[in-house]
Amino acid sequence: MKNGLLFILPGAKEIGRALMQQFNAEEGNAIIRKFPDGETLVKVVSDVYGREVLIVCSLNNPDEKLLPLYLLAKTLKEFGASSVLLIAPYLAYIRQDKSFSFGECISAPLFAQLLSTCVDQLITLQPHFHTGKSLSELYPIHASGVSAAPLIASWVVNNVSKPFLISPDNESSQWVEKMAEDIQVPFMAFNKSRKTDEEVELVLSQMATIDGARTPVIIDDAITTGATMKEAIVTLRKFTAKLPVCIAVHGLFVRGAFEKLMMAGAGKIVTTNTLSHPTNAIGVERLLADEVCKNSFVLY
Amino acid sequence: MKNGLLFILPGAKEIGRALMQQFNAEEGNAIIRKFPDGETLVKVVSDVYGREVLIVCSLNNPDEKLLPLYLLAKTLKEFGASSVLLIAPYLAYIRQDKSFSFGECISAPLFAQLLSTCVDQLITLQPHFHTGKSLSELYPIHASGVSAAPLIASWVVNNVSKPFLISPDNESSQWVEKMAEDIQVPFMAFNKSRKTDEEVELVLSQMATIDGARTPVIIDDAITTGATMKEAIVTLRKFTAKLPVCIAVHGLFVRGAFEKLMMAGAGKIVTTNTLSHPTNAIGVERLLADEVCKNSFVLY
Repeated sequence: MKNGLLFILPGAKEIGRALMQQFNAEEGNAIIRKFPDGETLVKVVSDVYGREVLIVCSLNNPDEKLLPLYLLAKTLKEFGASSVLLIAPYLAYIRQDKSFSFGECISAPLFAQLLSTCVDQLITLQPHFHTGKSLSELYPIHASGVSAAPLIASWVVNNVSKPFLISPDNESSQWVEKMAEDIQVPFMAFNKSRKTDEEVELVLSQMATIDGARTPVIIDDAITTGATMKEAIVTLRKFTAKLPVCIAVHGLFVRGAFEKLMMAGAGKIVTTNTLSHPTNAIGVERLLADEVCKNSFVLY
Repeated sequence: MKNGLLFILPGAKEIGRALMQQFNAEEGNAIIRKFPDGETLVKVVSDVYGREVLIVCSLNNPDEKLLPLYLLAKTLKEFGASSVLLIAPYLAYIRQDKSFSFGECISAPLFAQLLSTCVDQLITLQPHFHTGKSLSELYPIHASGVSAAPLIASWVVNNVSKPFLISPDNESSQWVEKMAEDIQVPFMAFNKSRKTDEEVELVLSQMATIDGARTPVIIDDAITTGATMKEAIVTLRKFTAKLPVCIAVHGLFVRGAFEKLMMAGAGKIVTTNTLSHPTNAIGVERLLADEVCKNSFVLY
């Protein structure tokens, strides 16, 4: 990366630094701080004139993070950045891509349009969709979502002997089933019905026979409250004595999710580093950097 | 108000209810809640088709509040609201209307443009400017800022015997001096220099003689950390034994501001109800309602 500058937003320091090493890029210097009245002050210190700029910002807690990101991106353009690429290792507001009951805001395209008014391009990992929609349907700018499947498959192969893979719901079953085929291990799926934000019900979608000699590996897009993962652990433990390995691409871990899963009987919890957490064991920086290079940024 | 609907956002319940009584309006019903992952779900329950809609939202903590407001306003339009008027008793992002050092984001017009993409009209009270800019220079939509001076003048006349008015800095001196003329009481001003967010220095701008029989009334746009007001109290107490009355239009009271002012020797602290706080003693709902009626909303 010859001429680029990479700005790391608060909360994305670990993944930002890891990306910087991938690119061998220069770190952009900006001051982003809150005034006592809650407004954000953004000051771009680096000279960005004529340069291609990357911003790394993981969009958990999106409501608080959007405006600082928006102000930074606009200011970079104001001071002459030739383009602004957002790397959002975790992207928000993609699940509400349809109305689930009358009167509901379909927030996904609204958020996408808003973000598209301040950045020129978006790269994210494993966008966490409800429906089959793709990023290009939501985003007017060029937006690509990289699959974390190869990294997770590789981690399983290297770290779990005799695994079998489990997807806790239909949303993740397709990519997890494909992963199981790729690494040639057994697969099973739960059917999930959601009762509330923190209550779900899981049933086995088929009369699966569970080989007690194999280690269950439950794989999901994200762990938020951990409700789904916990139900999967509890249900599995009725069928096998082996403690399951729990893997999620994005570890949000809110409302005591980590403690909840450990208490339910997780043997190990593993996440990628899209969101900084002690469970981070799979680095996604190389995958994201490769995607940046693929996407025709002239200088990479 | 024949056909209008008024939606009250979280944090604006008191002023919202007071406004509703002024208009004799129907309260709009919307669910605004956070998912565990931090995203906001907005659901408009009332039928808004063809109706004029008002949203009441005080924009302290603006970074968190902007996106829920944006999603609500867009959804109201989506479901057919004929127009959306935002009443922001306290408005944010108007102070950074120029760059104070190279590289700084000029956030005021950026915020104004963003807000203008989701609402059709804006009414606020006593916008808290640094420079002489007006709302119409910032906002592409029709935006009006009502002065709180008449209400404060009236409160002083009715509640303080033998007052003299003090403005703690040059920003507020013009409107406070005019108020002193209107109610025919003495006036003096401090010159302020700001060292940090929470440290200011005040000096008397003239060799004022202070009549020890009069009660000092310090008036400012806002109390945030209370740093300015506190310095004014401390400086004044060197010249008079009378405890000052401290009045602010907007009471943000962050970082223990209220306690700080009481400990410094405030005789009484009074605010308007733009932001809910125990010091609220001046209701602005009538003033805001009158402005709504003036601004050619056909149905009022």
